[in-house]
Amino acid sequence: MNEASLSRLKAAIRDVLDFPKPGVVFKDITPVLASGELFRLAIDEFAFAVGGERPDKIVGIDARGFIFGAALADRLGAGFVPVRKKGKLPWQTHGASYSLEYGEAHVEIHRDAVHPGEKVVVVDDLLATGGTAGAALKLIQQLGGEVICLAFLIELAFLGGRANLDPATRTVALLEY
Amino acid sequence: MNEASLSRLKAAIRDVLDFPKPGVVFKDITPVLASGELFRLAIDEFAFAVGGERPDKIVGIDARGFIFGAALADRLGAGFVPVRKKGKLPWQTHGASYSLEYGEAHVEIHRDAVHPGEKVVVVDDLLATGGTAGAALKLIQQLGGEVICLAFLIELAFLGGRANLDPATRTVALLEY
Repeated sequence: MNEASLSRLKAAIRDVLDFPKPGVVFKDITPVLASGELFRLAIDEFAFAVGGERPDKIVGIDARGFIFGAALADRLGAGFVPVRKKGKLPWQTHGASYSLEYGEAHVEIHRDAVHPGEKVVVVDDLLATGGTAGAALKLIQQLGGEVICLAFLIELAFLGGRANLDPATRTVALLEY
Repeated sequence: MNEASLSRLKAAIRDVLDFPKPGVVFKDITPVLASGELFRLAIDEFAFAVGGERPDKIVGIDARGFIFGAALADRLGAGFVPVRKKGKLPWQTHGASYSLEYGEAHVEIHRDAVHPGEKVVVVDDLLATGGTAGAALKLIQQLGGEVICLAFLIELAFLGGRANLDPATRTVALLEY
């Protein structure tokens, strides 16, 4: 990774207080996206994080994971697969539930989105509690895919989400808080 | 545009009956995304549709517009700006409402996402009734941006959405039904 690039990305991220609810400090990544130069640096770093093993598919998590995941897929010549909230994907789905602070959430993937033996990278903007990424990982593995890397722009390390993810799967975050 | 590429894209799109509600035939684009080759062809065609005028920003509409818009932004070295449903963007927003078949919808953009005089391309997967794209266009113009092109993968021409868009803004759809 290029430390100078990562510092520039971190400097552009904006803290928004009390979003989405009082007491939360939200990491607003839109200034990174809005700069053509910074957005490209971010995709450079995601590509570097994937390493030398060429993935067949990039799985992006709804909705900010689509932004980084799709650009990375185009860069690497891989296919792009969306993991979405329940009821958003039109065709036959495979789903998984996971716990939230209060209640449950449910994500889905198309049943034909990943084939057995395919190498997959999962991309999202944020690793918080790890619930969504863990559910995505499980779905891909159940379809027979091999997840070579979970890649995030930001890890909120103080939430301990990494401990909720499979330790056998390489997990990379470009920026840590 | 490359007619052979467009034919391959069209052949990959899958009709899903009765989604999201009975009587609707949904154009499922995920087979295009899932193929690294077809996804790249689609982004090639989007880049060609933009033409020679270099955009400062690509605006992608939540959520499938993020997929094509982000990859296009990375290709062209432009910034990426999300237009999202109400309440999803964390910072100060500028919003617009538009009519749906039943009721209203509301989309938002960050107030600092587009600067006066910037050249902008709006990207979405689907031009249906044109409500969302028209609202996005209005928001960008109100921020002082110049929309050089509205670009869609698919136009459902039988819905007549093009008639609801500003005729002074170039509107391109790669595939028409």
